[in-house]
Formats: sequence, C-alpha cells, structure tokens
Amino acid sequence: MTASNLLKQIEFIKEIDKIKYIQRRTKLFNSNRNENDAEHSWHLAMMAIVLSEYSDAKIDLLKVVKMVLIHDIVEIDAGDTFIYDQNKNHDNTAEELKCAKRIFGMLPEKQAVEFIDLWTEFEAGVSNEAKFAKSMDRLEPLLQNISNNGGTWEEFSVNFQSVYEKKKVIKNGSAELWDYAEKLINDSVDKGILKK
Amino acid sequence: MTASNLLKQIEFIKEIDKIKYIQRRTKLFNSNRNENDAEHSWHLAMMAIVLSEYSDAKIDLLKVVKMVLIHDIVEIDAGDTFIYDQNKNHDNTAEELKCAKRIFGMLPEKQAVEFIDLWTEFEAGVSNEAKFAKSMDRLEPLLQNISNNGGTWEEFSVNFQSVYEKKKVIKNGSAELWDYAEKLINDSVDKGILKK
Repeated sequence: MTASNLLKQIEFIKEIDKIKYIQRRTKLFNSNRNENDAEHSWHLAMMAIVLSEYSDAKIDLLKVVKMVLIHDIVEIDAGDTFIYDQNKNHDNTAEELKCAKRIFGMLPEKQAVEFIDLWTEFEAGVSNEAKFAKSMDRLEPLLQNISNNGGTWEEFSVNFQSVYEKKKVIKNGSAELWDYAEKLINDSVDKGILKK
Repeated sequence: MTASNLLKQIEFIKEIDKIKYIQRRTKLFNSNRNENDAEHSWHLAMMAIVLSEYSDAKIDLLKVVKMVLIHDIVEIDAGDTFIYDQNKNHDNTAEELKCAKRIFGMLPEKQAVEFIDLWTEFEAGVSNEAKFAKSMDRLEPLLQNISNNGGTWEEFSVNFQSVYEKKKVIKNGSAELWDYAEKLINDSVDKGILKK
C-alpha cells in the first residue's frame, strides 16, 4: 500500500512541475521579466515566514505556508487570471475546483482531501490562516509594481480605486501591514505611478 | 522599533527576488529549460510536505520547509555550484557563510540568527530535519534527469559511481525513499541513460 502511495506522490511531484511555466502578469522586482507561479509561491512562503509576527490573529504558520505553496497549482489547468480583469471572476470558480480535484486527486486519498481543503480554505479567505495568506498574495505584487514604476498598473491602466479595493484585503490579515501598504499606495499616487 | 524591523524585512524580501535569476544545471521535467533556484526551492518544499511520512526520524516539518526554502539564498552572492564539479567543493564554504551573513543579516537580529542557524544546520546535514531536507534536495534532480533521458548526467558525462555517491545521502533521511531512488539509479543504467 505504501509503495503504491509513493508512486502516486511521485506522479504528483512530476505533475506540479508545470506550474513553472504559468506566467503571471506581474514582473519581477526592478525587471521586465514576468514572474511565474512557482517563483511567486516561493516568495509568498518566504514572506509568510518573515512577516508572521504581524498577523493580527494567532496562526498556524505551517498551514499558511502550505496554503501559499499550493494556492496557484490549479492554474496548471485553469491558467492565470489577472486580478484586475473585469471580464473574469478571479475568485474560486467551479472550473478551478475541478482543477483542484484533478491535480490534488492524484495524491493518496487522505492527502488529496487535505490539499483540496487547504485550497478551498485559502480561496474562502475566512480562517485566520487564509486571511494572512491572502495578505501575502496581495502584498508581493504591490511591492513589485512599485519597484517597476507602476508595472502592471501602468501597463493595463489600473487606477487607484481598483488597486485600493483589491489591496485592502491585506487589512483582514494584519492591521500593521495594511498601514504600511496603504501608505505605499498613497505614495504611488503622489509619485505619479498610480492614477486616481 | 517594529516599524524599523518591518522596513528591514521588506528590504530582505526585495533582495531575495534575485534567486529567481540563479540558473541551475538541471532542467525542468521533460524539458530543455534550466530550473532556477526559486523554482527548485518551491519544489523541494512541496516534496517535503508530500513525502514527510517517509522520514525515518520524527521531524519538525515547518523547520524542514524553512530549510529548503532558504537553502539556496546564499547563491545570490555565491552563484550555483554544480554538484558534480570536482574542481569546486559544493559543501559549506567560508564564502557561502559570508553570503549567508550578508543576506540573512539584512533581517532584524533575532530572525537573522534563526536563518543563519537554519542554513548552517542544513549544510551540516546532521540533524533529523537537515537529513530529510537533503534527501529532498538529492531526489528532485534524480527525477528530473530521468525524465530527460539522462539530463545533466549525459550532458556533463557523470557516471553511475558519482551519481550513486551523491544520491546515497537520501538514505540518511529515509530508508524507503532510498530504496526507491536506488532502484531508479539502477534502472537508469539498464536503460542506458547512466553509464557505469
């Protein structure tokens, strides 16, 4: 039984390599090169570890790290959806759930259930861990766009109101990180890299 | 004090973005494209989570995940060293320790010490967590090279003895994963993608 479990786990490990080809709209820091989902997920995990002290609620850090590491795996089937795309709902869709079930379903049953539950919990954004994980997911591209003098805001004509609306999710995880992020957003308007 | 800590942490988060430009010799699965250190670190973290049940010793999984996420950050300054390069020692060097101190030293002191210690512990490979983390680090490129019909073994004329020597480190973390890996290595010889 263990041997067949291991083979399933190895097939999953091979399958998720495909996340390295999923390009995000956001560029790396001070760069013109698109970030891919593996790089993004690694960076969020590092941020969660480094910034965990700012979570307003007590959190299980391993659970947060697992969430951010797996949160974009569904994009292997579903593709990346740009957060400011008004024609497409970025949130948990039936299509993404189908992807989660296919990919996490490659694992032995107990693990498959754990991963699908973790992904669903992240998408719902209600638990303390999901709130903090989502704070990380919103903070990274904010820092990247600022380092790129507007980055995707400039490139796709995204204005202050849209950015503010998406980024205020950071507040659900951490008042202190939101204070910092809010200042960055306002400074971006002052610097002319984000239009009101 | 917290505010100045946060600014240090944000500078660290920006600095480690550079790991996304560090190319490894190993290629992605079934691919000709080199893997970078961020992608590699993400994949090892996923493997540690998925395969933790095979650790021979009881391990603190969060600690293992932290180790594999940060283990290559020193390469921002030191560059990637090919594991089979006989002219250069791949192991913990004075140069790498200097890099660790510079980069992790950007963090507030308590965190800087934690990360330098984690990196040093990983390099030493003595603790249960370090042993399992190193198993992951040796297993991923084995799977990649097999998927690429020899990959870097073929490209850099690495033979069975060298591969076996490097890979047997997997045994220190997990007898079961080593059984599996040893079979893969022997099968590779049988298939003619690894020369005796």
